[in-house]
Amino acid sequence: MSSKTFLDAARALLGERGLTTDPDLVGPWLTDWRGRFTGRALALASPVSTAQVADLVKLCGEHGVPIVPQGGNSGMCGGATPDAGGEAILLSLRRMNTVRSLDAGAKRIVCEAGVILQTLHDTVAGTGLRFPLTLGGKGSATVGGLVSTNAGGTQVLRHGSMREQVLGLEAVLADGSIFTALVPLKKDNRGWDLKQLLIGSEGTLGIVTAATLRLVPEVAERVVIWAGVPSLEGARDLLLHCEDAAGPALEGFEVIAQSTLDDVVKHIPGARAPLAGRHAWHTLIELVADNAGAAALPQMAQAMLEDALGKGLLQDAVVAANETQAEAFWTLRDSIAPAEREKGPAVQHDISVAVEAMPRFVTTVVPVIERDWPGTEAVAFGHLGDGNVHFHVIAPPGVDPLAWHAGDGKAISAQVYDLVSQWGGSISAEHGIGQLKVGELGRLGDPVHLALLRQVKHALDPRGLLNPGKLVPPADTASHMLAPKAASL
Amino acid sequence: MSSKTFLDAARALLGERGLTTDPDLVGPWLTDWRGRFTGRALALASPVSTAQVADLVKLCGEHGVPIVPQGGNSGMCGGATPDAGGEAILLSLRRMNTVRSLDAGAKRIVCEAGVILQTLHDTVAGTGLRFPLTLGGKGSATVGGLVSTNAGGTQVLRHGSMREQVLGLEAVLADGSIFTALVPLKKDNRGWDLKQLLIGSEGTLGIVTAATLRLVPEVAERVVIWAGVPSLEGARDLLLHCEDAAGPALEGFEVIAQSTLDDVVKHIPGARAPLAGRHAWHTLIELVADNAGAAALPQMAQAMLEDALGKGLLQDAVVAANETQAEAFWTLRDSIAPAEREKGPAVQHDISVAVEAMPRFVTTVVPVIERDWPGTEAVAFGHLGDGNVHFHVIAPPGVDPLAWHAGDGKAISAQVYDLVSQWGGSISAEHGIGQLKVGELGRLGDPVHLALLRQVKHALDPRGLLNPGKLVPPADTASHMLAPKAASL
Repeated sequence: MSSKTFLDAARALLGERGLTTDPDLVGPWLTDWRGRFTGRALALASPVSTAQVADLVKLCGEHGVPIVPQGGNSGMCGGATPDAGGEAILLSLRRMNTVRSLDAGAKRIVCEAGVILQTLHDTVAGTGLRFPLTLGGKGSATVGGLVSTNAGGTQVLRHGSMREQVLGLEAVLADGSIFTALVPLKKDNRGWDLKQLLIGSEGTLGIVTAATLRLVPEVAERVVIWAGVPSLEGARDLLLHCEDAAGPALEGFEVIAQSTLDDVVKHIPGARAPLAGRHAWHTLIELVADNAGAAALPQMAQAMLEDALGKGLLQDAVVAANETQAEAFWTLRDSIAPAEREKGPAVQHDISVAVEAMPRFVTTVVPVIERDWPGTEAVAFGHLGDGNVHFHVIAPPGVDPLAWHAGDGKAISAQVYDLVSQWGGSISAEHGIGQLKVGELGRLGDPVHLALLRQVKHALDPRGLLNPGKLVPPADTASHMLAPKAASL
Repeated sequence: MSSKTFLDAARALLGERGLTTDPDLVGPWLTDWRGRFTGRALALASPVSTAQVADLVKLCGEHGVPIVPQGGNSGMCGGATPDAGGEAILLSLRRMNTVRSLDAGAKRIVCEAGVILQTLHDTVAGTGLRFPLTLGGKGSATVGGLVSTNAGGTQVLRHGSMREQVLGLEAVLADGSIFTALVPLKKDNRGWDLKQLLIGSEGTLGIVTAATLRLVPEVAERVVIWAGVPSLEGARDLLLHCEDAAGPALEGFEVIAQSTLDDVVKHIPGARAPLAGRHAWHTLIELVADNAGAAALPQMAQAMLEDALGKGLLQDAVVAANETQAEAFWTLRDSIAPAEREKGPAVQHDISVAVEAMPRFVTTVVPVIERDWPGTEAVAFGHLGDGNVHFHVIAPPGVDPLAWHAGDGKAISAQVYDLVSQWGGSISAEHGIGQLKVGELGRLGDPVHLALLRQVKHALDPRGLLNPGKLVPPADTASHMLAPKAASL
């Protein structure tokens, strides 16, 4: 039994706690947290060190066993769920959860892949610093997963995605060698930046085992504003104004349509809208300052708003009077998804176009979808400042959820992805490709980009053992066109 | 005649102005600007469009002709100079010098590869914005060269290297396909970031033909400070203090030893030291603010300095009273290299270690070099805030320059690179590898990093026609160890 030989050897490497085939222990990790994908696996491997990961990857290479790396299992695209074949090993990084070092002076922290985002935040608290990335799944998302999916969140406007937080990286490559680049060199021009290959590659080029992350000064003062604007274009004008007036203090700029806000207020017991009047669109604006800028922040915010009002850039605005009110504003924003689920089934799209094109995209595409699919409601909300809007289409009332998802829902998604591609945008702004969107990426991706993805994948993982079936669309379709010319020589 | 057939075909593609073999026209571009490298070429090709570049690259592929891309020919490592074989074509991007678009609202500009950095600055002037990267060679350096070498400069501390300025990219790949990613998507998670492969790859993976670059608000106010500190460690403490107190306003932090300053003052007629007393190390600190922060800047600078004085972080300081004095301070910094040349031959090293390790590195390595090479003077200056110091070793008085460079100079450089590698640093912080350092990279590079460089290079340019001999060390030495395991399967 080849698989028994392999499992025995793996157990010898990892010990009893490091390898299990017990269905009760493996089972929970074979389905993604939203329950959309379920797979099978030979075993669950849980190494405790980079050396163990390297040894296991070498062993998998010798036996031709595919590897599916997994962090908190909180991804949105099934990128950490094995396929149904059951030939792969599920490689959990969760036991590699050591914070290797925290250097407050140099403003950085070295975390192993299994450190949970909330733990990272807790570890940094009290040092006068913070890690400038957070998201809904912070209680389960791990550093390795965040790096591998280039995670985003609500602070990207100011601080960038995970890519911008990664100063250094350690990973195990397909041949079991250890790529070490944890010492952050602010300047290093020995060729292209190799660690960029691993950020956002969803475990298809290597397995991230540790990362050096940047920290920024903690927030000493914040001003949270709710403002009504007459249109999404108006929201964009207000955003530009805030960028100019507040500079690096602008940390968040979210947009919500009036109808969406109505749903949210109805959904939360006792909630009320921040503004008395009705506005086509609402914006949630957050300004923050560290110690250096705290004293000047409230006055700057006031001047920014008065100036905006004078220029007709907003119809009405309210500044949160205290932290409780600020949190209440954010609760409205964070309750859009649950409020919507109450309304019935919906297809959700995490898309982006160029920042300046997003208002036109939304105002053009919403009526197209609602016209082509009578009874649906198309809703856009989210990170206008990043050109990234969560674009959801809610099913007509009374449909059968399963049938609708399999039929119209699927067709609507394809149409949304067609449209965003025509606009030069991305079918995945934040959530990655995984197995959920690999087909759509193959269908809609630029052939030159797809060829590059495949060339690099093949070069770094020639046998395709690292997270097979994820991210990189197979070249089957139209491969005569996509294959690099030179490869045939 | 294979080369005649190729040249006829190339001329047909590019026209008479686009292809020349005239030695008077080709000659000046066959030697780098410092005169250290000279090569030969079949011809000088000067396409005017991305399509022409693509057609030429395809033609070169058909004929097996290597391609050496060149921008302003102002690189420091011979990366744009062909080898002596004379089989390559020199591909100049200088005629592709169109600014395709400037969007002040979106704060970005799309430049073709041949746009000169000074032209870029001039184009942006008057829009309320600026391009936040500049360097000595701005009158000749081109956008394509800056991207391909991931150029640095004096503003990296605040704004990052060229990598951080590149929002979008267009390039011609080895098979003649055009990689297009000019529309900047702030969020795009369709896999790893492909354009990162081209930034800093020195034309070995593709030929950059255009880039979308970010712009930032123009400087409305600046404060330039000269401060004396007792040690390099003290300079680092002062840097940390300034980072905390000034936040994003801190744009430059340079260090100069007293002895170096003495040489500079002697070198410039009429110059005098900014401070009355003598200090082991001097620091040049620049704070800037855009309109949003201009009013608060002088007061913030004053508070920062008083606080530093109170904490004993500086011995003496002077704030430039006006722009003339500010420029005079910077002239001292910019005159270090010419002042040093007056003293005699020197070997120069553009190196980096982790930011916090740089003071210890300098204070450890300077005496080692001066002990091992009696009569030499080791001098470190530059971008302490980036962990990047220009480390120069001046020859003993009276040596024969040529003989010293070929003998002791070479041995000293090898020792410096050995030491910086032992400290986990980079043998090229800013200037790249080119042909100057490719041997040292092969000797000192991490085997796993070198294997990755070679794997990607081979995948994207399997015939090795793009800028051969540059950046990627050949695998000849110890290739049995470096070859990826899986490749032999």
